[in-house]
Amino acid sequence: MADLRGGDLSRLRQLNSLTAIRALRRAGPLTLSALAERTGLSRPSMKEVTDELMALGWVEEVPPSQGTMGRPARRYRFRADSGYLVGVDIGGHNIRAALSDLDGEILAETRQPVLPDAPLGERLAAIERAVTGCLALSRTTVADLWTIAVGTIGVIDVEGRVIYSAAVPTWRDLDLAGKLREMFPCQVLIENDSRLAAMAEARRGVAKGARDVVFLHVGRRMGAGLIIDGKVHRGFGAASGEIVMLPEARWFDAPEHLNTCASVPEGTPPEDAAGHTLAAARNGDPVAAGAVERYVDDLAVGTAAMVLILDPQMVVLGGGFSRSADVLLEPLRRRLERACMRMPEVRASTLGDECVVVGAIDYAVDHLDDQLFTPDRGPLPVSR
Amino acid sequence: MADLRGGDLSRLRQLNSLTAIRALRRAGPLTLSALAERTGLSRPSMKEVTDELMALGWVEEVPPSQGTMGRPARRYRFRADSGYLVGVDIGGHNIRAALSDLDGEILAETRQPVLPDAPLGERLAAIERAVTGCLALSRTTVADLWTIAVGTIGVIDVEGRVIYSAAVPTWRDLDLAGKLREMFPCQVLIENDSRLAAMAEARRGVAKGARDVVFLHVGRRMGAGLIIDGKVHRGFGAASGEIVMLPEARWFDAPEHLNTCASVPEGTPPEDAAGHTLAAARNGDPVAAGAVERYVDDLAVGTAAMVLILDPQMVVLGGGFSRSADVLLEPLRRRLERACMRMPEVRASTLGDECVVVGAIDYAVDHLDDQLFTPDRGPLPVSR
Repeated sequence: MADLRGGDLSRLRQLNSLTAIRALRRAGPLTLSALAERTGLSRPSMKEVTDELMALGWVEEVPPSQGTMGRPARRYRFRADSGYLVGVDIGGHNIRAALSDLDGEILAETRQPVLPDAPLGERLAAIERAVTGCLALSRTTVADLWTIAVGTIGVIDVEGRVIYSAAVPTWRDLDLAGKLREMFPCQVLIENDSRLAAMAEARRGVAKGARDVVFLHVGRRMGAGLIIDGKVHRGFGAASGEIVMLPEARWFDAPEHLNTCASVPEGTPPEDAAGHTLAAARNGDPVAAGAVERYVDDLAVGTAAMVLILDPQMVVLGGGFSRSADVLLEPLRRRLERACMRMPEVRASTLGDECVVVGAIDYAVDHLDDQLFTPDRGPLPVSR
Repeated sequence: MADLRGGDLSRLRQLNSLTAIRALRRAGPLTLSALAERTGLSRPSMKEVTDELMALGWVEEVPPSQGTMGRPARRYRFRADSGYLVGVDIGGHNIRAALSDLDGEILAETRQPVLPDAPLGERLAAIERAVTGCLALSRTTVADLWTIAVGTIGVIDVEGRVIYSAAVPTWRDLDLAGKLREMFPCQVLIENDSRLAAMAEARRGVAKGARDVVFLHVGRRMGAGLIIDGKVHRGFGAASGEIVMLPEARWFDAPEHLNTCASVPEGTPPEDAAGHTLAAARNGDPVAAGAVERYVDDLAVGTAAMVLILDPQMVVLGGGFSRSADVLLEPLRRRLERACMRMPEVRASTLGDECVVVGAIDYAVDHLDDQLFTPDRGPLPVSR
């Protein structure tokens, strides 16, 4: 990322410039007159602003519309490719990364398998490879990166430290934001993976348009993310969604019903056992079907707690097990109908394994928008 | 409430008038110049707007400031007494009502005891007496009432119907909003009592300034109200806060530990039993202390569910049992410290038995504000 030019920056921060950028981001190419109308600025002031934004590399001229009579008016567009964003999903078994332009359009994706008991250094190296892989795929360099947004397993704090993860023993007491800033000289954002997945479903997935959503992030681990009044609910100390920690809600050990099912063939790797059980239940194996029933019994208790407390419009079954929604969704619905005051819609995720990495990109785009409209949020990058 | 004058109304709905009203509500008496500056209107347009608002009875002139040099400027104020609001708390054992001006300043209060098993007609008659008592106390008439806001026991729907109440058998399948509109020819708002109590604590009570609050509405019944991002969280079908319906959360039967304690003297009326147990525990009775421990064990499970899901800044112990906060607060805190990821502040309500009726007044004031700024929310009253 290029250094900031102080004089330009102070002018860039004028609300006028920011309003112009937002108008262009939302509407696509606009003429000076159209921009002036949308921002309330005079045409000469608008011209000054666009000149300034062009000098900073945020805005460029595009060819005039076809077939315009008389002298064609100049049009301007936001350069979504004036910088890039990376989203990262740090899971127990996989590191995923995606690279997008500033509008969140995904241009490259990578995945790196990693063992849950891998040493810390190995996991960090896999993260670095996943990100540099995205840069190579999209022929960009680390200098073009504006923001890396990370969704991680484990409990985080508001400063982007990982406190602890039940699934990955080495993933604790870690200044993750600091480590990533050492690797990549750009802005780093850290968020809980289930919250980012919930955001992605509410923006691009099955919950699009719903204002209140309970997202079940279920697979080998159990997690939850909440959308309340259209926004991700983080909590006062970034610790929301942790119903798994309440023994009475019966989430923590729920996957054991699937992992320890007698239908799982001997010698199956532990991480594949649950998948075997779900597949066997789909194929009519009564022992596997019983294990799935017991799993859904437990899943429904923690889910009912969230539904009774929040009364959401929709519950989304997401995470790795959402691939088995055909086996899980109806039994879950039946139990919630008995337990809840008002029955929400219950739907399967449409983003599947991509949900966290896509949510991380959406989070980075939102953060950029926030910066554009909150001048004291720190310096804005200058495009190269 | 006087009839609306169509022509005035359409003009009143102009944003300019509404902005002027808001400025006056917030700032107190203002001169025309000060009003013009705050609203962005020219002085002549501002004069037109204030003349109009005076004709409608919303605004009046006040004497000029003392000691002003030269010709003193006229000043205008919002007539908070141009209409009145009533808040009602419909409980199992009491009906409370309060009357306030349009700024929410409480001018009169009444209470009517009522038996939980009283027939429906008796409870409705008690509500009518409580409200008309407030009118008599404050020498106002029903024609001066703009809004009645009601907090009620039981589960309601978004149209203000009472679906069901576990505590009061006759309180079900009831068009409460419709019944109240038959009694009082004004706007009627219905809300769950715990949500209004939560709102009152967040506006005027111990949670003032906190953005995320879990309010425990505990007494002979168990309820909860949530403040999320500074607003009451209602839920998609107005059914939020119902953790009491989840058996695993152990709230429903929790008060039985206090009601059935062996320390309660024979012949004590059932509704006074819990109070006896709490008082005996305070005085060192070991049997009562054991009952309180078991009560707090159960209270802590449902509370931990809400804390783990939402990660609030504060938990407020409110409702009837908040009078025994000295006996309950520390044991509750100890259990939450063990169960929760991040420990919230745990505080006792400062509004006590008034919390619902005060919350109902705040709700009516908010609703008036909403109407002022959402022109399609229906007609505005004209002051008499």
